[in-house]
Amino acid sequence: MDYNKINDEIIEQIKLSVNGKVYVGEEINEDFFHDEMPIYGEGIPDVLIDATCKEDVSKIMKICNENKIPVIARGAGSGLTGAGVAIKNGVMINMQSMNKILEFDEENLVVRVEPGVLLSTLAQTCLDKGYLYPPDPGEKNATLGGNVSLNAGGMRAVKYGTTRDYVRKMEVVLPSGEITTFGSIVSKSSTGYSLKDLMVGSEGTLGIITELTLKIVPNPKHTVSLIVPFEDLDDCISTVPKLFQNNLNPQAIEFMERDIVIASEKYIGKETFPKNMEGIDVGAYLLITFDGDDEDLIDNTLEQAAEVLVDNGAIDVLVADTPNSIRDAWAARSSFLEAIETQNKLLDECDVVVPVTKIAEYINFVNKESESYMFNVKSFGHAGDGNLHIYTLSNEEDKLDQFKEEVDKFMDVIYKKAYDLGGKISGEHGIGNGKKKYLKSFEGNVNIEIMRGIKKAFDPNMILNPDKVIALLGE
Amino acid sequence: MDYNKINDEIIEQIKLSVNGKVYVGEEINEDFFHDEMPIYGEGIPDVLIDATCKEDVSKIMKICNENKIPVIARGAGSGLTGAGVAIKNGVMINMQSMNKILEFDEENLVVRVEPGVLLSTLAQTCLDKGYLYPPDPGEKNATLGGNVSLNAGGMRAVKYGTTRDYVRKMEVVLPSGEITTFGSIVSKSSTGYSLKDLMVGSEGTLGIITELTLKIVPNPKHTVSLIVPFEDLDDCISTVPKLFQNNLNPQAIEFMERDIVIASEKYIGKETFPKNMEGIDVGAYLLITFDGDDEDLIDNTLEQAAEVLVDNGAIDVLVADTPNSIRDAWAARSSFLEAIETQNKLLDECDVVVPVTKIAEYINFVNKESESYMFNVKSFGHAGDGNLHIYTLSNEEDKLDQFKEEVDKFMDVIYKKAYDLGGKISGEHGIGNGKKKYLKSFEGNVNIEIMRGIKKAFDPNMILNPDKVIALLGE
Repeated sequence: MDYNKINDEIIEQIKLSVNGKVYVGEEINEDFFHDEMPIYGEGIPDVLIDATCKEDVSKIMKICNENKIPVIARGAGSGLTGAGVAIKNGVMINMQSMNKILEFDEENLVVRVEPGVLLSTLAQTCLDKGYLYPPDPGEKNATLGGNVSLNAGGMRAVKYGTTRDYVRKMEVVLPSGEITTFGSIVSKSSTGYSLKDLMVGSEGTLGIITELTLKIVPNPKHTVSLIVPFEDLDDCISTVPKLFQNNLNPQAIEFMERDIVIASEKYIGKETFPKNMEGIDVGAYLLITFDGDDEDLIDNTLEQAAEVLVDNGAIDVLVADTPNSIRDAWAARSSFLEAIETQNKLLDECDVVVPVTKIAEYINFVNKESESYMFNVKSFGHAGDGNLHIYTLSNEEDKLDQFKEEVDKFMDVIYKKAYDLGGKISGEHGIGNGKKKYLKSFEGNVNIEIMRGIKKAFDPNMILNPDKVIALLGE
Repeated sequence: MDYNKINDEIIEQIKLSVNGKVYVGEEINEDFFHDEMPIYGEGIPDVLIDATCKEDVSKIMKICNENKIPVIARGAGSGLTGAGVAIKNGVMINMQSMNKILEFDEENLVVRVEPGVLLSTLAQTCLDKGYLYPPDPGEKNATLGGNVSLNAGGMRAVKYGTTRDYVRKMEVVLPSGEITTFGSIVSKSSTGYSLKDLMVGSEGTLGIITELTLKIVPNPKHTVSLIVPFEDLDDCISTVPKLFQNNLNPQAIEFMERDIVIASEKYIGKETFPKNMEGIDVGAYLLITFDGDDEDLIDNTLEQAAEVLVDNGAIDVLVADTPNSIRDAWAARSSFLEAIETQNKLLDECDVVVPVTKIAEYINFVNKESESYMFNVKSFGHAGDGNLHIYTLSNEEDKLDQFKEEVDKFMDVIYKKAYDLGGKISGEHGIGNGKKKYLKSFEGNVNIEIMRGIKKAFDPNMILNPDKVIALLGE
């Protein structure tokens, strides 16, 4: 695919067309050259524009489309696969200034926001008014536009679903510059192909979101967490489906192996998880949260859950039912990634998802497979939905090439295993730039060709976030 | 778009390729010429084939694609917009013999079915094992393939969502004859464009579903219904958002105007709804169901709900908490359509959806607007999600042309109003053949062109269910 290079004339045209500030060349901050995983690609935009409104976005797109110049929308840059990086240079549109909450509609239980609003801002605004925006990905300083473009998941997906389930309507600027609307405020629709659902998770390759209408729910009045130690991972994981069969409907269920808890507690300097109980060395933990409006019902649920857990091999069940104790229980879990990043100089990760019933088999396979590589592997994840984060870690900085090569081989093997078990490459981090060769291998040519056809229907000149998710046509 | 006519040679080729029975010309039963609304188009397939397996479907598609012959998949024929009618003739594939439940997976809480399984069959199988398949559209004898192709909604959408929310994975035969899989058994995915979500609601225009993996939930142990009479529709409808704000989470909330209840009770020969209470003539009703596992909690919910309802103008709250009384309460609601069909010779309908807060304004508008037409209008619908079924009714059979003409004008006006209020053409019946001109008018050319591009990406020769949802290219 051939693109044109931007020139002074086009830059001038953009400057005259938009309200937002335009940065050129060295005026652009280096933070915009990569996301949280520079390993998946870096790229320097020729021009960066702070969009202030949909008209800015529309005008930039129109100019870029007419001139065949790559264009990419950028949120907070907190992605983990290089999706928001200008690998083909061109124009980057920074959406972070479009950060207003436009409407808080308590009657229809929806909020209307600009895409640059941070998840943490919406979450807090909702809580202040007695509501909950359920999607809860780990990175709270991501933009909502980014969350939607990725179909971000998070801790509460088990009970509440992923971001997709909270997107009612979106305003989108197409690569042509045309401004359109997909979806509507209503919850139910059979009105043509669901273009809204196609946009969700398309990682900024089909259009640029300039407004979102998101569903919210009343905030549950009570929350209780359980720390549940097991002797080994098999018992720990095989208990999870039992909770669902008993309709206990947890808000979150995370599993952790012993090693990663120790690493994380070392990092935060506080020990909350028991390591030995009743003379048994703890091998793995479940961390479970229940929520609801009725205190008696939650007590009842806890009792039933405790019975199911102990019947299935839990050594004990530790209850955290005050805000402080709940925060402590989750502190280690929330700090995994930071702990890992601090303690390891080389790091790569995968974000597979497998059926809940296959987690133990999968983790055992991964641990065994990892023995023949130079790196260590640490895993944790969302036991309730089978979404696992597997980290390859090393401190041998001088062996970066070997690390990359071995990780590549390792990923091929463990992705294949995920597919063999009925899973997928990514539960919530997406494909971006770093995972597209795996998407091609494992989703198969038939599906990739359909995706390419869809891309072409939205973006005939292939200018928008080029070479992400699916590789460029003709390559 | 030019198609070829099937000939004896191609018919012979199909007969040699498939396991299923092949019917030609007059061997085809007339039931296959239309759906439940012949007013939206009739069409005679040249050939009808009972598919027995995905390979049958694949072979037929390949032959039709190579020969540019229209092909259409057919479920139970219970659609209401002509989506399943062979308006361009050609080959019809009857999916009703592919009706096996292949797997009932209680650990992952999914069922794997062939697309010809009836909704009623799956619903009962789930109940027998203690589970619930939540989607509950009115027509229980539809196939699941049809339900998914339409994103069927139904009574329980308020609490449980629509069919889309229960589709995890599907096997699809593409127009090329290739067999592929979209989605996976897992609940969470950010693995490329969501082709599964694009298929849901695409009304058989993108591919033919040959297998479905659907999510199920444990069946709630208790169910209670309330009949709630109000003096007028405004009070009745404006109470609905209050229930959500109080997080009472009903399974279903239907509203009914007095007239339609009387018509329906006359039809079933049984009166359950009070017409005058405390000296007040009842103008409208809510029919509400709550479900849950905990009897105390449901009692508590009922108490809170009763308070909210009476505070907002309900004349009284009648509780139905035995299987018999619940059945009686819902009998009139379930018989609306039959009652209307029996009592009226000419009938058309629309299936708009508007924001919950706008239902009263919309129904008042529709009632006032209808005064200037030859037909009567009766409305009912899902108050919890704003999905309204508005029937235009007449017994002047000799004035069919005038009826059609006036209905057309009326629909234009009331669809426009729905869009003005933030709604959509169809909540659950789809676009099919009958509503495509409205889709074009109200969704706008930009969105329609994208839909056409998507159609082309799946079906370059445009052979599959041609001229449905979006009109043919070039027309």
